[in-house]
Amino acid sequence: MLALRVDNKRLAVRKIAKPAADGEALIRVLLSGICNTDLEIARGYAGFKGTIGHEFVGVVEESSNQKLVGKRVVGEINAGCGECALCRAGDPRHCPNHTVLGIVGRDGAHAELLRLPVENLLPVPNKITDEHAVFTEPLAAACGIHERAKITKTDRVAVIGDGKLGLLCAQVVSLTGAPLLLVGKHESKLRIAKRLGIETTTPAKATARNGTFDVVIEASGAAPGFELALNLLRPKGRLILKSTFNAPTTMNASRIVVDEISIIGSRCGRFQPALDLLSRGAVDVESLISEEYRLSEGVHAMERAGQRGVLKVLLRPSA
Amino acid sequence: MLALRVDNKRLAVRKIAKPAADGEALIRVLLSGICNTDLEIARGYAGFKGTIGHEFVGVVEESSNQKLVGKRVVGEINAGCGECALCRAGDPRHCPNHTVLGIVGRDGAHAELLRLPVENLLPVPNKITDEHAVFTEPLAAACGIHERAKITKTDRVAVIGDGKLGLLCAQVVSLTGAPLLLVGKHESKLRIAKRLGIETTTPAKATARNGTFDVVIEASGAAPGFELALNLLRPKGRLILKSTFNAPTTMNASRIVVDEISIIGSRCGRFQPALDLLSRGAVDVESLISEEYRLSEGVHAMERAGQRGVLKVLLRPSA
Repeated sequence: MLALRVDNKRLAVRKIAKPAADGEALIRVLLSGICNTDLEIARGYAGFKGTIGHEFVGVVEESSNQKLVGKRVVGEINAGCGECALCRAGDPRHCPNHTVLGIVGRDGAHAELLRLPVENLLPVPNKITDEHAVFTEPLAAACGIHERAKITKTDRVAVIGDGKLGLLCAQVVSLTGAPLLLVGKHESKLRIAKRLGIETTTPAKATARNGTFDVVIEASGAAPGFELALNLLRPKGRLILKSTFNAPTTMNASRIVVDEISIIGSRCGRFQPALDLLSRGAVDVESLISEEYRLSEGVHAMERAGQRGVLKVLLRPSA
Repeated sequence: MLALRVDNKRLAVRKIAKPAADGEALIRVLLSGICNTDLEIARGYAGFKGTIGHEFVGVVEESSNQKLVGKRVVGEINAGCGECALCRAGDPRHCPNHTVLGIVGRDGAHAELLRLPVENLLPVPNKITDEHAVFTEPLAAACGIHERAKITKTDRVAVIGDGKLGLLCAQVVSLTGAPLLLVGKHESKLRIAKRLGIETTTPAKATARNGTFDVVIEASGAAPGFELALNLLRPKGRLILKSTFNAPTTMNASRIVVDEISIIGSRCGRFQPALDLLSRGAVDVESLISEEYRLSEGVHAMERAGQRGVLKVLLRPSA
């Protein structure tokens, strides 16, 4: 089968053996989505070797749970050891021996087939198209904000970053009714948020509102976004870090102490809230799709995904 | 009167005019304590010019509240505008126009006399000696941890830094009954904690327990302490930043996101809990006193306070 693979920073679509289910479920990928983390991994982040990709929708081809076979599914990306206290409590996301689809110790989704534990899979309601279902993972990451920090409609919230993650975070926060500002540099991307009724501005103009936000969500994936976030916060404000920018970031720790800021890291979220939002049509993911390529064109698709102004790039193995 | 003053990084004991009460209380300083923040300010931190010092015990000489005159007091160091929402709610610590005794826009405590708003003053119970009462401010800062993060007796806690602040934080945490490890480099300082029944270790040995702490309190005031703190934390752990180290700190933001760490800045605490602990004799501050000097020897005292192995250095104006 074809798979988009990284080996020592070399990215290529290769023909590899079909994976064995080996006690897990085997899923035929219908569509996969390129995430910025994929681009980081291709540059060497996390030292990962193998098939990249962790956003997908597919059809179960083999499973110990026969009811799942033939079903359209999405899959949570963390697979735990099943035995530690975290796994037994039903949350393998921080299991010390976990693997992560296409990120840590487990081949990923930019392939014709992938495997995941059966318990990671969630059936996709019929009303959600493949093109929308493939957003379940990044939308779940945005919803994960609520797992880490309570946001109420009286919180003044800013989201920094108008990329895929920023636009999803802004939409998820917008549903709380909290007054919201999206800060970004790309007119075309900000326009998507504006159309959804979200106030937008540029980083330069945002500084006029320094010190006035209760919550700032950093989703730009760049160090200047981190500094802007600190500036926008009021004393005792909360900075939610969503994006994994793999570069040392210089910060003024005394600022965090003097202003008694809280910085809250947030990574993966549960899939069910995201599926619920997609079912209700409560979030616009359609506008975030920039381009679709055949899996065989994966290397070019990755290049496109890294270019300015491009949002979600999808890969279709069967095309 | 004499005062220990900083002007453009020049530190000197100078003879200056006695301050006017000007609607506030005038306090004759009995003892003041040198804090690491004083050392930072002398190096240029916060751009402060004037009399430094914010830890003191004194006697009220003038006050609109006649009942306070002649009383021994300590004083909260933040003075607000009195009109903003924060001040009206009784907490001027983050008032945007606040002054801070010996730190921001207000002459400090290393002087014969100081002034503070009457409402900042708390009478000191007779049973607390001057030498102990002068620890109210740093002990309040340690108690401030509880204002920012709930610590229960099931939390595994590490405190990094065996200086004055670290030793106070460790003692305050120890009172919760939580299993506690103090990490420091100074045998003589660690011995104080050991004597109080607190487990201690060195930074090098602490790494054997990476990933096992629910809460880590950074009180070393140095960048390596920050990195060690991140290493010691379990996923979803909480890092409480207590010390204001005035240097850019490089951190790996992706680590905070991937492990979903919370970083919580904590600065000043309320004085009453600290006075209560001192009244009860629940905390050993006696062991933290290294040396006492006359205010006129303030420059030398500051040098001593910055030397390795030295804990609290006190200044006595009347000597």
